[in-house]
Amino acid sequence: MTTIDINCDMGESFGAYTIGADAELLRIVSSANIACGFHAGDPNVMDATLRLAAENGVAAGAHPGFMDLYGFGRRQIRGESPADIERQIIYQIGALQALARAAGSRLAHVKSHGSLGNMAAEDPDLAMAYARAVKAADPDLILVVMPGAETEKAGERLGLRMAREIYADRAYAENGNLVSRKLPGAVIHDPEHAASRVIEMVKSQSIITVSGERRQARIDSVCVHGDTPGAPAVAALVRRRLEEAGIAIAPMAQVIETAV
Amino acid sequence: MTTIDINCDMGESFGAYTIGADAELLRIVSSANIACGFHAGDPNVMDATLRLAAENGVAAGAHPGFMDLYGFGRRQIRGESPADIERQIIYQIGALQALARAAGSRLAHVKSHGSLGNMAAEDPDLAMAYARAVKAADPDLILVVMPGAETEKAGERLGLRMAREIYADRAYAENGNLVSRKLPGAVIHDPEHAASRVIEMVKSQSIITVSGERRQARIDSVCVHGDTPGAPAVAALVRRRLEEAGIAIAPMAQVIETAV
Amino acid sequence: MTTIDINCDMGESFGAYTIGADAELLRIVSSANIACGFHAGDPNVMDATLRLAAENGVAAGAHPGFMDLYGFGRRQIRGESPADIERQIIYQIGALQALARAAGSRLAHVKSHGSLGNMAAEDPDLAMAYARAVKAADPDLILVVMPGAETEKAGERLGLRMAREIYADRAYAENGNLVSRKLPGAVIHDPEHAASRVIEMVKSQSIITVSGERRQARIDSVCVHGDTPGAPAVAALVRRRLEEAGIAIAPMAQVIETAV
Amino acid sequence: MTTIDINCDMGESFGAYTIGADAELLRIVSSANIACGFHAGDPNVMDATLRLAAENGVAAGAHPGFMDLYGFGRRQIRGESPADIERQIIYQIGALQALARAAGSRLAHVKSHGSLGNMAAEDPDLAMAYARAVKAADPDLILVVMPGAETEKAGERLGLRMAREIYADRAYAENGNLVSRKLPGAVIHDPEHAASRVIEMVKSQSIITVSGERRQARIDSVCVHGDTPGAPAVAALVRRRLEEAGIAIAPMAQVIETAV
Repeated sequence: MTTIDINCDMGESFGAYTIGADAELLRIVSSANIACGFHAGDPNVMDATLRLAAENGVAAGAHPGFMDLYGFGRRQIRGESPADIERQIIYQIGALQALARAAGSRLAHVKSHGSLGNMAAEDPDLAMAYARAVKAADPDLILVVMPGAETEKAGERLGLRMAREIYADRAYAENGNLVSRKLPGAVIHDPEHAASRVIEMVKSQSIITVSGERRQARIDSVCVHGDTPGAPAVAALVRRRLEEAGIAIAPMAQVIETAV
Repeated sequence: MTTIDINCDMGESFGAYTIGADAELLRIVSSANIACGFHAGDPNVMDATLRLAAENGVAAGAHPGFMDLYGFGRRQIRGESPADIERQIIYQIGALQALARAAGSRLAHVKSHGSLGNMAAEDPDLAMAYARAVKAADPDLILVVMPGAETEKAGERLGLRMAREIYADRAYAENGNLVSRKLPGAVIHDPEHAASRVIEMVKSQSIITVSGERRQARIDSVCVHGDTPGAPAVAALVRRRLEEAGIAIAPMAQVIETAV
Repeated sequence: MTTIDINCDMGESFGAYTIGADAELLRIVSSANIACGFHAGDPNVMDATLRLAAENGVAAGAHPGFMDLYGFGRRQIRGESPADIERQIIYQIGALQALARAAGSRLAHVKSHGSLGNMAAEDPDLAMAYARAVKAADPDLILVVMPGAETEKAGERLGLRMAREIYADRAYAENGNLVSRKLPGAVIHDPEHAASRVIEMVKSQSIITVSGERRQARIDSVCVHGDTPGAPAVAALVRRRLEEAGIAIAPMAQVIETAV
Repeated sequence: MTTIDINCDMGESFGAYTIGADAELLRIVSSANIACGFHAGDPNVMDATLRLAAENGVAAGAHPGFMDLYGFGRRQIRGESPADIERQIIYQIGALQALARAAGSRLAHVKSHGSLGNMAAEDPDLAMAYARAVKAADPDLILVVMPGAETEKAGERLGLRMAREIYADRAYAENGNLVSRKLPGAVIHDPEHAASRVIEMVKSQSIITVSGERRQARIDSVCVHGDTPGAPAVAALVRRRLEEAGIAIAPMAQVIETAV
């Protein structure tokens, strides 16, 4: 039986500010990427999200980003060495690890956020710094990557366990990259269309590009977004359609174990 | 042979800002309390301080404080529950723990900073939150406390290893507390006087108050300050005088092991 | 004809984080207290709020708070001199003044936020620092105060124009202070009850305490809250009931001019 | 008689952190560019710097930068619109303007900091946003620009008063731009060489490139650095040599007035 993980960014509230529909989404997804206090999140939010994930049987992972609360980690920040970024990632993972230990939980994976993730996916040095940080924090952590990205290559070089993910609501270009959000058709707004596409990609273990071509790629996880209105409804539909198509949902550790 | 630890706050630089004479002090002290990015410090500074401590054979510890870079952790911040503070302390220790693992090192102790430390020393609930945070992060961590403080009681209740410290340059009131900095004579400016007082307290295992009375108290560590001009010279003199008096200097883990 | 102002805190969103129902509330109130980037708000939010206020004919004022985004200005921060706080308030007002100039608008008043406001209301030195800051930024600014507070006395001493406000949804103790939120009955949850109480206080120009006693006090403005669910509905009801009772709504500058 | 301004970045300390030798430099320079709390500085530092500048007869200006204390405004931050940056600049200038009013002083000029300055010098849209911000804050403010930069063109388009500056310690490429710091010879370390070059450029009103060519350019101000060791000694030498060469030192407002 095919098994797939559904992952979602979580724990991005801060102080008096609330963002995302975490409680609802934690009833749907199987892996939660929890912000670590740099681009979003704070110790209270991190702790609450870890506990709620555990209650829902959802695997917890770290979601490190740039030190940029104002820009929510979406601004490109240049001028630091990969080694600087490496230390910032270790810091963030370590903070969440300790809160997980205190909550009787343990981190399963790491997925980078926003501009940090985008930049690491394209920059081999930054990708290696990121992978080194994950390995240093805990060599058992699963690195979540896009098939073909520099982060995947870095994970391979360091011998890390990896989960390859696709985006439920994003179109893919011929080279396997995401179509830029600036181009028409980049975002798939119809949940049913998103769901059927996801099923096809998971079943065929390939990425389907805008022209309809299939690029062979291992797929272990589907990323759903949490910070758009109606996000829980879309995520729930994707999950239901996957299950109806005979695809089981499980945290990524289980998916990649089965796959080997 | 009597053995004593010398501890000092470290790693309090931030970004382009430098504070303290860490490189010099790490040649003198046996334990370094390293700021964790809340009241001071950043991932680069934390990493560099951990590595330099290891090179000098100095034991590394966490120095968590209030989330208050602007106030350097010295402002009293009220309005959060002890549980909130507990999570902030776990976060900070965890971040430093992961950087220590990455640097091939390991934390030996925790000492709280500034207003957080002062408030925890007097508030039983905050003291328990602090001790719980340390235990959750790693039950082997040594809690650095002032003899008689609420933090000492909290550490006892939770069964933590503890190191009792005295301040080299501060006068003690009759009840064993520090004389308020606002009162005359609170700070001892003459290094020779500080050194001889420290030797007397360490040898007699008692705190000597302003009236000359001795209050029996176990003493495992001497705190020297790092952020005053001339701090390294004072620290070096205290160390030399201690050694001349036949007192050996060693990290606090060794001191408390010997003592038992 | 009796005229009264309705004021509300606004512009407390930050970066990707949204809080409050500013657009709806700006169709109801006559004065907006705009956060200045310390406890909440950022330059984009400040600019957008200034412009939206102007479009709705709502008077704009500064809403300075503690430098405490994480705590939303609600934590008590101690350890700075009144002169330090004075400079922080000038900074915040100045930043908003310049954005107002750029938007073709001008600030009419200042109302302090959260813990800063509460502490200034009770501490004569802090109250004077606050009033001096307002005067230094622009001596024509109206200081919004609670009748009887230290801030009112400070405004009187410096000869500032002032607007006295009552809270629509808070009970008053016998001494004219707000009943602590920790006590039962401190917050009035029934909008109709809040509205009728406001009308009675405005018409009688007195504060009505929990025992029903009336304390003579000039009342120029009614504060409604913006960050609770259903806030716009409550504010709209208060306004409607005031108008039905023959009380006109106008910005505080107009109210205090008429009153003199 | 030829007159020239000497400007220097100032007020870049923050909280407990001290940077720069402001007190010494304020006895040497004629214009101070004061950080505004985003990349550096805080309300206390801003106030103290404004007052010390006034006491020394030094003209005060705003030195706005990116919202990036950790990176000291030196990191390139991308992903915000020019309009966003415009509002951030207005905010910063406004904050300093109000503190200047409170101190009985007034801002004379604006000079952007670090990466914000570098990016605006090359990006026409950002340059216009910057110039609009300055004009909105106060149309009398002098815009400090490098001859040939986009910021100079933007200032011209908006009719702003401008002061053209050269760097005392930096080499110029054939196109009039600064030689990248990454290239050899980019920074002039010998103070006497820096001083004689400055005198030649000021006297000939031209920029002298690395090949020795002279590019005609109006020069109103010389920028000296404040955050390198020995900065005051270099600045003092440059000033002395200029005066010995018969060039008077005066704030830039006076220089550009004379020049017209």
